[in-house]
Amino acid sequence: MGFSPYQSVPITQVELHDGVLSPRIRQALAVTIPSSLEKCRSTGRLAAFDLDWKEGKPNKPHIYWDSDVAKVLEGVAYSLALSPNAELEAEYDRIVERIASAQQPDGYLNTYFTAVEPEKRWSNLCVQHELYCAGHLMEAAVAGYEMLGKTRFLEVMRRYADYIATVFGRGQGQKRGYPGHEEIELALVRLYQATGERKYLDLAKYFVDERGQSPNYFLEVEHQNPFGDIAYFQADRPVRELQEAKGHAVRAVYLYSGMADVARLTQDEELLKACQRLFQNLTTRRMYVTGGIGSTFCWEEITQDYDLSNSSLMYAESCAAMGLVFFAHRMLNATGDGKYGDILELTLLNGVLPGISLSGDRFFYTNYLEVDDNTKTYNAGAKERQPWFECSCCPTNFCRFLPGALQYVWSTGPREARLNLPLAGTLKNHLGEFHVEGNYPYGETITVTAKTQGPVKLSLRLPAWCDNPQVKLNGIPVSTKPCQGYLTLEQTWTGNDVVEMTLPMPVKTLHANLKITNNAGRIALKRGPVVYACESIDNPDGVANLILPAHQNFTLQEAHGLPKGTPAITGTAIAESAPDPQALYFTQDLLRKQVPFTAIPYALWQNRGPAKMAVWLRTE
Amino acid sequence: MGFSPYQSVPITQVELHDGVLSPRIRQALAVTIPSSLEKCRSTGRLAAFDLDWKEGKPNKPHIYWDSDVAKVLEGVAYSLALSPNAELEAEYDRIVERIASAQQPDGYLNTYFTAVEPEKRWSNLCVQHELYCAGHLMEAAVAGYEMLGKTRFLEVMRRYADYIATVFGRGQGQKRGYPGHEEIELALVRLYQATGERKYLDLAKYFVDERGQSPNYFLEVEHQNPFGDIAYFQADRPVRELQEAKGHAVRAVYLYSGMADVARLTQDEELLKACQRLFQNLTTRRMYVTGGIGSTFCWEEITQDYDLSNSSLMYAESCAAMGLVFFAHRMLNATGDGKYGDILELTLLNGVLPGISLSGDRFFYTNYLEVDDNTKTYNAGAKERQPWFECSCCPTNFCRFLPGALQYVWSTGPREARLNLPLAGTLKNHLGEFHVEGNYPYGETITVTAKTQGPVKLSLRLPAWCDNPQVKLNGIPVSTKPCQGYLTLEQTWTGNDVVEMTLPMPVKTLHANLKITNNAGRIALKRGPVVYACESIDNPDGVANLILPAHQNFTLQEAHGLPKGTPAITGTAIAESAPDPQALYFTQDLLRKQVPFTAIPYALWQNRGPAKMAVWLRTE
Repeated sequence: MGFSPYQSVPITQVELHDGVLSPRIRQALAVTIPSSLEKCRSTGRLAAFDLDWKEGKPNKPHIYWDSDVAKVLEGVAYSLALSPNAELEAEYDRIVERIASAQQPDGYLNTYFTAVEPEKRWSNLCVQHELYCAGHLMEAAVAGYEMLGKTRFLEVMRRYADYIATVFGRGQGQKRGYPGHEEIELALVRLYQATGERKYLDLAKYFVDERGQSPNYFLEVEHQNPFGDIAYFQADRPVRELQEAKGHAVRAVYLYSGMADVARLTQDEELLKACQRLFQNLTTRRMYVTGGIGSTFCWEEITQDYDLSNSSLMYAESCAAMGLVFFAHRMLNATGDGKYGDILELTLLNGVLPGISLSGDRFFYTNYLEVDDNTKTYNAGAKERQPWFECSCCPTNFCRFLPGALQYVWSTGPREARLNLPLAGTLKNHLGEFHVEGNYPYGETITVTAKTQGPVKLSLRLPAWCDNPQVKLNGIPVSTKPCQGYLTLEQTWTGNDVVEMTLPMPVKTLHANLKITNNAGRIALKRGPVVYACESIDNPDGVANLILPAHQNFTLQEAHGLPKGTPAITGTAIAESAPDPQALYFTQDLLRKQVPFTAIPYALWQNRGPAKMAVWLRTE
Repeated sequence: MGFSPYQSVPITQVELHDGVLSPRIRQALAVTIPSSLEKCRSTGRLAAFDLDWKEGKPNKPHIYWDSDVAKVLEGVAYSLALSPNAELEAEYDRIVERIASAQQPDGYLNTYFTAVEPEKRWSNLCVQHELYCAGHLMEAAVAGYEMLGKTRFLEVMRRYADYIATVFGRGQGQKRGYPGHEEIELALVRLYQATGERKYLDLAKYFVDERGQSPNYFLEVEHQNPFGDIAYFQADRPVRELQEAKGHAVRAVYLYSGMADVARLTQDEELLKACQRLFQNLTTRRMYVTGGIGSTFCWEEITQDYDLSNSSLMYAESCAAMGLVFFAHRMLNATGDGKYGDILELTLLNGVLPGISLSGDRFFYTNYLEVDDNTKTYNAGAKERQPWFECSCCPTNFCRFLPGALQYVWSTGPREARLNLPLAGTLKNHLGEFHVEGNYPYGETITVTAKTQGPVKLSLRLPAWCDNPQVKLNGIPVSTKPCQGYLTLEQTWTGNDVVEMTLPMPVKTLHANLKITNNAGRIALKRGPVVYACESIDNPDGVANLILPAHQNFTLQEAHGLPKGTPAITGTAIAESAPDPQALYFTQDLLRKQVPFTAIPYALWQNRGPAKMAVWLRTE
């Protein structure tokens, strides 16, 4: 075991011009961030920082509002770094001042618990979101500092963190509490990394390690257990003893991300092992084929092994997928193991991206794998993406996630550039310049032109989904036996070497573990890292009534009405119909006819209007 | 249109010795009723009538407790009528006195709103259960009077009903309210029928007709709307305008039953039409193949057309199935149309009976159609029957439903005996004696020996599930062209005539409407009126992984470990297995092997220990 030395690269060192992720980032900058900022204004979320809300006034602050503003501001910082804009920057500065003005003399900063229920500060960590909001504000402040060199917000948040460090801990008179909604752990790590101030890491470690200790803070101090099982909050036992990924999906993966951070920065192998165990349980028993997690709308939970229904009951919240990317990314850098990159890639492309429309202004909170007329939606579930939600965590999370996703493309180690996601674009940093071309994730061939000289390692992730990757260096085939999922070219570069990687992408038909009973008799189509779905728009004979032979000659065609270069999978299916479509139950044989079918990337569904859709399709 | 003159027969005129329903009734008398009575005692439900509960004492009364006691007492009355027992009768009388002692000077009788929150009497009809409890107490009192000739309880409940009639109505100073949980409507009709007092029918009609009128009592007087859609309480519009069966399943069918009663007794064709429309919508778009209703644990609701998932999310509450039987029975007598008898039979045998163990002391609240390791249970859902529930409506409902089910076997009209359910047994009344033999619902041949003389009509229901019924009278075939599902033999009987009815029962494979997307590619097995299920106990290779060819030679065998005479369906299936059982998603072909399969009547599942089970099985 041991820890790997890999680091993320700043997003400003990465440029993308691929056909899948870069248009989403562009749209986030052009549409998602400005429109979310406007929503924060129009719903009163910004005004909440003026602390002048009184009973009877509209827009009563909510306990999670600060986090929405923070996530949008974090996105604005990335946006300004990637695409400077004086007007937006001035607005950013004004909002930071507005936030700063809400800070209390002792450093506390929370609109709800200052303006609405000041007497309840820190009184209910379990259910309230104070430390969660604090964490998001810290992340936003760090982004502003790292991206733009701005210190004002950072200093405000340092003061808040300093104050929090006085309130919580194991010292005399301190509360031995921890957040009911995790987030501050990973945020404190970012604050530590931005400032070099060790106490922030210590506080993160405290929040991680105190969690679930006895006496249980939620159960025995706060007497809170709103969902009947404190495992909902990952607080049923010390985190090092957690065996299963359980409870609220977003809370879970945010905690695991913080654990991975703390493990790595403190070289804590026991804690890393807990992370590996949780990752293993989560991704090999409790994850949708899309990389989504959380299989019930009932409290947005991860539930139990193989409980992964595809419709009404399921959740697969967009934020939970983002959180799984955070977790996988940290595990990838901490261990260097490509298996984490595989999940990062899977979830990014198929778990996160479906949550936002191509236009950037409509969102799924719940990412169903099947939608039909009989689908009943619960809670924030919807059959069409929505512009905003009452609890609008997902839209605001996209504001920061999408530009932040640039950091996943490459990692670096000591004189090593590691290509995690071979998307077309460029890395420019102290190691040199690396130009990636190709149509990944739709195209099989990627070229990396290494504009560097001397001994630099170039490592290419060979995805586990690919059975026979081929790599050539300056036209000469090289062995592709990977180490932990990466092929490392250790080389003295000559300034203009070309590496060509071919990742064959035959259409694959996936079966699900038979313990996922609802998927028995069904297949999912996947090509490369991209999961496909049939949408009624392309399949006028229906979707749920289609039977796809698993062994057939699938062909690729340009998808209709989707971004240029999007390959649809087409082939032959059998469409069933009933002799009497009115009958509820009947004994007559079904009618069958052969029809063509078309599948599109799941992440792109419901971009051409409302539709029926299914990822898991019946097979023979 | 118009109304039919058919009546239920008192349960004391019917004796059964069939192999399916009569053992359940016997067990209800021997086990379910005594043990439920004991539960009412041990949980404080009986003591609640002493009205001496105080804060700090155990067993705080609950708003629905009175109804539990009432349902058990109703069952005790039937039990005493069918099987006299001096000790039980003495206990019955004592409990009635205890109940009577709780009646307030003005006639009010509710333990919770007398002992716990007296100031809240009638303050929240929407959510509280005052009128619901009153209705069940009335039903119990009527049963005691009709079965045993006891008047004490009846007089108590008449006083209560008289008082309720002063509180509710359209007069000056009256509340124009109606119950949030329907029940009192049909109970008042029973009280009217027992006493001949027209005002009870008028009050029932008032509750039916006032419901959903404008201004809406729940929304605009009580300002209650706890589930966000007042249709949950069937109160979104006047009941005559209801187009769809919606909302809480038990509430819905109890209301519809009351509507059918009022329609018939007031010869209200418009109201009957509403009942027919609701029945049609419910049973042709929103009903499980077992006759169960209510497809979500989320507030126990009927939801929308074709939303009928089989596991975790579903509900199909035992009480809701009983309520559908109540509704179907009323519609059958009101219209004489055998289609209501078809649903009565289906739901009784397959929707109600699975809710109780053969032993009579374990209950399902939720009747899943599929249970496997990955099934997550919600609310009162369980994979094994439970002895009791916190909200124990289902166990107590069985106490009265099962002995009460004797009334469904026959109906009578003017000089007409109508055999609704051709179960072995006897009807003895003013029309003569009719002896039914056979092994229905498992046996195809039924003989009815008519020990009567003179012109009596004998009508036999020819079930819609039967394609070619054959009937002989004294050995001579008669035409079986039914009228509204019944074949009427109009005859001058000679005192010992024999009618032989043969209802061929080939094993049928049912498909579901393709709009029930989760059942696409699946079949259910049914033989006669009995729905079958595969249980892992008989199918060691698994259940969810079985593929049953729809066209095959099914054979019948005696089921193992179930009551003698229970036919299992056996045949050949393909069992799928995964090359790597650990893989969550994989591309390799599944392995297939031919295996025998065995299916048992769904109503009998989970009587031989915990098991995996499925009604809807994959087919080719």
